[in-house]
Order: sequence, then C-alpha cells, then structure tokens
Amino acid sequence: MTELKPVSSWKSFGGTLSVHDHESTLLGCTMRFAVYTPPQAALGPAPVLWYLSGLTCTWANMMEKSGVQEHAARHGLMIIAPDTSPRGEHVPNDDAYDLGQGAGFYLTATQAPWDRHYRMDQYITDELPGLIAANFPADMTRQGIFGHSMGGHGAITLHLKHPDTYKSCSAFSPVTSPARVPWGEKAFTAYLGPPSIAWEHYDATELVKERPSKALILVDTGTADTFLETQLKPEVFIKACENDGQRLDFRLREGYGHDYYFIATFMDEHISHHAKALAG
Amino acid sequence: MTELKPVSSWKSFGGTLSVHDHESTLLGCTMRFAVYTPPQAALGPAPVLWYLSGLTCTWANMMEKSGVQEHAARHGLMIIAPDTSPRGEHVPNDDAYDLGQGAGFYLTATQAPWDRHYRMDQYITDELPGLIAANFPADMTRQGIFGHSMGGHGAITLHLKHPDTYKSCSAFSPVTSPARVPWGEKAFTAYLGPPSIAWEHYDATELVKERPSKALILVDTGTADTFLETQLKPEVFIKACENDGQRLDFRLREGYGHDYYFIATFMDEHISHHAKALAG
Repeated sequence: MTELKPVSSWKSFGGTLSVHDHESTLLGCTMRFAVYTPPQAALGPAPVLWYLSGLTCTWANMMEKSGVQEHAARHGLMIIAPDTSPRGEHVPNDDAYDLGQGAGFYLTATQAPWDRHYRMDQYITDELPGLIAANFPADMTRQGIFGHSMGGHGAITLHLKHPDTYKSCSAFSPVTSPARVPWGEKAFTAYLGPPSIAWEHYDATELVKERPSKALILVDTGTADTFLETQLKPEVFIKACENDGQRLDFRLREGYGHDYYFIATFMDEHISHHAKALAG
Repeated sequence: MTELKPVSSWKSFGGTLSVHDHESTLLGCTMRFAVYTPPQAALGPAPVLWYLSGLTCTWANMMEKSGVQEHAARHGLMIIAPDTSPRGEHVPNDDAYDLGQGAGFYLTATQAPWDRHYRMDQYITDELPGLIAANFPADMTRQGIFGHSMGGHGAITLHLKHPDTYKSCSAFSPVTSPARVPWGEKAFTAYLGPPSIAWEHYDATELVKERPSKALILVDTGTADTFLETQLKPEVFIKACENDGQRLDFRLREGYGHDYYFIATFMDEHISHHAKALAG
C-alpha cells in the first residue's frame, strides 16, 4: 500500500479537512487529494461522497469555496476531492486550459503522448478508493459521486458504469455530451483519437441510452452560465433520460452562473440528496 | 460623487455578490471592494455589516471562503468587504507581508512615506459609506462591523470609537493589543512613529479602558491558532474588558486555527449576533 504524505490539516465544522500526497503507480506521478472527515466518523465508518472538479481545478476549489463541510458535518458524510488530472513536469501538458493537466476528463487515454499518465477514471474508481479504505474511517459499501462541469460529467459516467459502487449521483452544471461540444471534441480527439466507439464509452448521453441506472440523478444548471448553450447542452441529455428511463431531476436555476457561488447556493440540496440515498 | 466601475457580479443564495472599483480621493488610488446584497433588499433597505479582513487579504477571502452569503441571505444583511490597504504601483509598499499593501491596520499613518495614502480608518468610516449609501439599498442607520485578525482588531477599534455608527461588533481571531505584539509594533512604528499616545489611540485594549461600548462584543479564537500566543494575546484584552465594564463573549475554540475553515464554522453564530443587534 502506498503511503500517504500529510500536506495540511484543519479543523472544520467539528470534523477534519486534510490534504495528502501519494505516489500513484497507475498515473506515474505524485497526486494530491483532500478528505473531509465528518465528526460522526469518530463513532464509526462514514459514507463516502466523491466530488469530481471541473477544468483547471484541484482539490482546493471544492474544499475552499463550496461550503460543503457544513452540510457534510450535519449529515455525517465523508467528502473526497481528488485532482483533475495527473500532474508534474514529466507529465504531458498543453498550454490551453481545456487539455492536459487540469483537464483529465475522467477517462483512460489511448493516444500518445497522453496514454502513459492520463487514466483518471481508473484512478478514481480503483487506486484512490484503496487508499481511502486503508487510511480513513470510510464505509466503502456506501459511496456516492458528484461533480461540477467536466467533473459533473465524470460523476454521471462513473455512476452509470458503476451503479453498485456509486449508489447516488448528482452534478452541478455538467457537460452532458462531450462528444457533441467543443471541450469534449478537443479532449476526446487528443486522448482517444478520431470519433469511434470509444467516444461513446465516455459520453454520458450515449451511456444513459445503454445503461440507465436505478438511481435518481440530480442536476442543477444556471441560466446565466456562459457555457450553457455551447458546452453543457443539457437538452440532449434530458431527452435521452426521458427516452431511456433514466430518472433525472433537472433544475434550471434562474440567473446563476458556472461558479462556486452557484455551487454553494445549492450544495445543501445536493448533500441532502446523497445523504438520503446513502443512509445506513 | 465618485463613480463605481463594475468588475464582476454573481448570483448567490438568491442575492447578488458584486465587485466594484472606484477612484479614492482620500487614499489617492483605485480601490476595490465587494458587496453582498441579500434578496430582502429588493423589498427595502438592508442593514449593513462591514467585514474587515486580515493581513494580505482582499475582498475575495471573505466572499469566496467564509460562506457568509448563506447566513446573510437568511437574515437579510448586506455585507461589505473592503480591501486591507491602499493599492497601486505608486503606493508605498514593503516586501514583508505584514507592512504596506495588504497591511493597512485600519489607521491613519503620520509617517513618511506612508502618510499620503494609508488612511484606512477614514476610508472605512467616511469615504466608502458614502459610496454604499449612494449606490446600494443600504439602511445606514443600522450598521455593524466585524473582521478577522488585523481586521478583527480594526472592527473592535472602529466600534469602540463609533459605537453609534457600528451598533454591533464581533471578531474572529483578533489581534487585541497591537502595541504589545510584533505585528503591531512593526506596523505602528512605521505608520505612527515611536511609541506615543497615537499608539494608544489605535489599540483596542487601551481604547476599551477609556471608552467601553454598551454592546456585547463577540470573539471567537482557535486554540490551534499559530498566532495565538505571539500576536493575538486575548488575555490582555479579556482582562481590560473585565476591569472596565466592556461586555465580551470570548470563546476559545478547541482545535481550530487562524484560517477560513475556522471562520466558516462559526460564521452562522456571528451573523446571528449581528442580525439580532441590527433587527429593525
């Protein structure tokens, strides 16, 4: 088992927010993540809620700006905030904000130069859970997943592929069909090559057609989100859910943007959604 | 009246967070501040709560990391977050984090080169309130003040000097007697010259001896605050309040640090304290 190297730790709402580094054999680099351990974990293992962040983000955006700790402490949920890509000077990168480091898209790249390090889906589903289970008071039989933008899409796809692992799912402002929008077309072409069956394997709208989950997916998106019409395109996903029996609670929020002020506003409702689904 | 130049705006908890620039004639530079306007302000002027930030900070620390909007929206309070010093390339500065830009200490400097621009107490009490009154739905007859660290000290001193203006006061991890600790000794020497009566005029512990207010001052400080024993020294202030009839609710919070995770944890209680005092 890889060792965790402690980076920082703060008391927050009666629990502990801690940041850790570890050597990822899967990704071939040092990775950093944050865990909020709620006060209830002192009494027994806590359900685990994974948060996948958006383009350019690290663990910090979620833990510093979303206000999640207040609600996680009330419901006794452990929150895990991984990074959004492999990191390091030896890891391939791109000058653009929407490719390379900070833009892993929660998939396994098959194209050079990305294919050695970019395996963020496996990192989230396999390597990091092992570290969490071994080092934190986590009840790995009760896990949920959510995220924002690129990470909202990541959360939906990982939930659909692993519905027995991630029993609850929600998203803020998710990309809903990367194969149909500029962010996704650029990243998928780089990481997966020209359009192919592989694109469908990583596209939430295509996945929901093949394997809707039994869970209710909660989505909030703002009407003032500058990416709404060009990158998020919720209408395509909504239609696929309707057609294929995926339960979806999609809420369009008047006047809200793509930012963490929006996320913080509705965090209470998202945490309640997961807490209800993950109640012991 | 100076014009405000809009910088950014976001919807948050039903209200609006907006950031503005303006030319400060008092400080001789462009200043930036943020205002959270609660949803209730659509129905009538809202009470105003000033937040003075700590060393190195701007409006952003408070508005991004404290979670204040949730509680301000519930209670209908307007929150103002000014900067911590004059700013600009032509404004005197120091390489240290605890002197010059980002470290105005909410006083009027009398020593060169600081005396031209460093007048943060007058900026907070005179110039900025005029802009707020003219541009926002603010009820200027109901104002409170709070802050963190250097800004917690600033809030206490401005409350004690202007108890009829700032009817409520609280502080997170405040410096309580700058004249007695390294941060304050360094800043006061630079801004005010060698120890003199001027130092006492800007020292909360000295002020409370001369003019305790009729309000209850609420203070939260963490036991794991790395500045507790060297810079904050709450015991001196607590003793002065006891001796001189200042009502003080001082809470030492086990395990908490000097950070915004601590502030966010107790923000609800501070906002409730102010809302109660400022209720119409």
